[in-house]
Amino acid sequence: MPKTKKDPSYRPFQRTTRLEAFSDGVFAIAITLLVLEISVSPEAGQGLGEALLEAWPSYLAYATSFFTIGALWLAHSTVSEYLDRADPILLRINLVLLFGVGFLPFPTTLVAEFVDSEGDERIAVTLYGVLLMVLLLLTSVLWRYALTAGLVRDDISPAEVAELTKRLSPTLLLYVVAIILGLVFPVLAVVAYLSIAVLVLIPVATVYRVLRPKSSAPTGTSD
Amino acid sequence: MPKTKKDPSYRPFQRTTRLEAFSDGVFAIAITLLVLEISVSPEAGQGLGEALLEAWPSYLAYATSFFTIGALWLAHSTVSEYLDRADPILLRINLVLLFGVGFLPFPTTLVAEFVDSEGDERIAVTLYGVLLMVLLLLTSVLWRYALTAGLVRDDISPAEVAELTKRLSPTLLLYVVAIILGLVFPVLAVVAYLSIAVLVLIPVATVYRVLRPKSSAPTGTSD
Amino acid sequence: MPKTKKDPSYRPFQRTTRLEAFSDGVFAIAITLLVLEISVSPEAGQGLGEALLEAWPSYLAYATSFFTIGALWLAHSTVSEYLDRADPILLRINLVLLFGVGFLPFPTTLVAEFVDSEGDERIAVTLYGVLLMVLLLLTSVLWRYALTAGLVRDDISPAEVAELTKRLSPTLLLYVVAIILGLVFPVLAVVAYLSIAVLVLIPVATVYRVLRPKSSAPTGTSD
Amino acid sequence: MPKTKKDPSYRPFQRTTRLEAFSDGVFAIAITLLVLEISVSPEAGQGLGEALLEAWPSYLAYATSFFTIGALWLAHSTVSEYLDRADPILLRINLVLLFGVGFLPFPTTLVAEFVDSEGDERIAVTLYGVLLMVLLLLTSVLWRYALTAGLVRDDISPAEVAELTKRLSPTLLLYVVAIILGLVFPVLAVVAYLSIAVLVLIPVATVYRVLRPKSSAPTGTSD
Repeated sequence: MPKTKKDPSYRPFQRTTRLEAFSDGVFAIAITLLVLEISVSPEAGQGLGEALLEAWPSYLAYATSFFTIGALWLAHSTVSEYLDRADPILLRINLVLLFGVGFLPFPTTLVAEFVDSEGDERIAVTLYGVLLMVLLLLTSVLWRYALTAGLVRDDISPAEVAELTKRLSPTLLLYVVAIILGLVFPVLAVVAYLSIAVLVLIPVATVYRVLRPKSSAPTGTSD
Repeated sequence: MPKTKKDPSYRPFQRTTRLEAFSDGVFAIAITLLVLEISVSPEAGQGLGEALLEAWPSYLAYATSFFTIGALWLAHSTVSEYLDRADPILLRINLVLLFGVGFLPFPTTLVAEFVDSEGDERIAVTLYGVLLMVLLLLTSVLWRYALTAGLVRDDISPAEVAELTKRLSPTLLLYVVAIILGLVFPVLAVVAYLSIAVLVLIPVATVYRVLRPKSSAPTGTSD
Repeated sequence: MPKTKKDPSYRPFQRTTRLEAFSDGVFAIAITLLVLEISVSPEAGQGLGEALLEAWPSYLAYATSFFTIGALWLAHSTVSEYLDRADPILLRINLVLLFGVGFLPFPTTLVAEFVDSEGDERIAVTLYGVLLMVLLLLTSVLWRYALTAGLVRDDISPAEVAELTKRLSPTLLLYVVAIILGLVFPVLAVVAYLSIAVLVLIPVATVYRVLRPKSSAPTGTSD
Repeated sequence: MPKTKKDPSYRPFQRTTRLEAFSDGVFAIAITLLVLEISVSPEAGQGLGEALLEAWPSYLAYATSFFTIGALWLAHSTVSEYLDRADPILLRINLVLLFGVGFLPFPTTLVAEFVDSEGDERIAVTLYGVLLMVLLLLTSVLWRYALTAGLVRDDISPAEVAELTKRLSPTLLLYVVAIILGLVFPVLAVVAYLSIAVLVLIPVATVYRVLRPKSSAPTGTSD
């Protein structure tokens, strides 16, 4: 008897499970490793309080990378929830996305270390912003590829699809603006990156609130 | 055909799955990264035994953070077990909670390093205590939001709900007392934080023992 | 309608799932963090090859801790597979076990660093052996508690239960012998710890081979 | 009543689940820890830009190890998807594979550090290449053992089995060539290792594209 979609051992679903487990692992580890970048060692004659205040770029970089990875994870889990199955190319696009997510702690450290050092600040902040932008772009590519390849569940309405597509796109422009801003005011650019992550976190919420009632409507008030 | 709760691909359940996987990842990584904070390098003329004894603040801070994260994880998994589904706001409250959990290794290191250094000890211990308290508060907020938003499974009795609500609250007062104590006796405050974590770990057990028979009663002795 | 075992949202199973996810996370992270302990920096005038050879205690300690955690994980996953459900006390015994597993990278580093330094070697090796023994003991306690509390699945035959109980116990004596040996020959003791881990890994295999046919017999050749 | 395959608590499936969770954890952590190897500290009078460019061996080693682990993970998840169940020997082969995966960050650091230092480069690059080759070999052993032991799902056609077997093998020869190349041109060998990983990533895709239509044909357009 051939396996069917209803069968829990049916291949494509299995595959999505493993894709999600591995991705969740990389997202969770990258987001938690960020803390290793923060370290405070008071210089001679300096109190801990003062040293903690001086370490503000570490906190800013930590928060920015944390909420960006958080926003990427939310987008990723929304996309993967809309997926019926994965295919080989999707798995590879996902691997490239994880490559960037796993790399993020490095430019985060650069920003924390160099954001207040004359001259080097521009390089650190620009590299960081470009990576953040590329990560968001890759999440968008992941979704658009899934659409093109017909991997999306067919119980997702065109309105839902259009909504998610729209939500994943416009922030790219915001990154371009923030990166250019960073050439003049590096610290402000990092604040802008953090704001973008927070902004991304808010509208995705709206997508859900709009979609939930529609999809649960047919099951009535059973819940 | 509309998806139903019985269907494994039904959305809300899927979502809780992914929320749990990501949260478990962050909790597990943060709790395991704590060990990197412990390091012992005997000074010239000092034996390893002596150096190991001198490193007691590291062990105290490790145990305190480990059991606090353990208690938070237990509370978190209890809450998520009572959930029927997640919603966008819950996911974001959860992200803020994970932000704090992921950050915890940093103040843990501060306490280990500065708890026996005159003057700086108060800052380290107070910051640490405030973060621990905020983490417990956020777990409580997560639960109360789930209640307000109607995300809790409808087969959970009002008594069970009230019990969990009660259990998640009172420790906040204990933290306030311990933090104030820390302004005078920093080391004692850390011992108090550890005791609170252990205290939290015990009563949650009671909740379960009280609830289990009730909920499994209808299925009889089938198991 | 009361939830039943067939229902995926039935509580006890859900709970074991989360216990396993969190434990797998801690085991996987602890086993992978071990590698951070290995570092080789050739001194002036020394080639990389020579420096790599001199670092043998790091490899020995890495292999010993890796295969011990591996053996603990196998034992843990066997125990959890025999479980019908978890209870609050089991979750806490498990947390204490994970406390030890998460701490293991620290004594591993001590052994790697001090195993060839006169005098300190005994302290490092003894502490390490005691922790390894305690971890195995805790795994055994976890299983015995599950038995006492009636948490084991009722389709597991008494013979299977007796077999697993027997397999989890005798190695404790081997650890006592190895720890005493370590007071005289520290390096040999570490080799003995590694051998015990490998020994534990082999017999557990036998348990499975004995049990598999029995339990799959009733389903015939359906697969 | 005996447990059947349809029952979620049926043993063999449960076991594969846990094997996958632990393996996904180790793969995900090893791949994410790699980033800790990259660190840039400009020397006196050197700008950040220059220091970043000089750190190219770190990026090369990071990318090589990342995509090799990625390729191993893809192969591993393909193998595990074809598995009906695990057995004790398979679990141990898997543990040895994970031993190597967890160890990989160490030779990666060696390559990053010594690839441009006269004399030591050959040792670092050769050790690295040998480990990469052994890891691929172990993945192949895992699959061949599963075949021999009859652990593969019986709905996988002989053509699919032959295809996967073929895909997992030939790259070994490529590693031998690259390792020998490394004795003369160390940097080129690392580039070759990276190319092999990318090559491995591409054909596995083809396996899937070939197999998918066949296996999903019987379910028609039901979804």
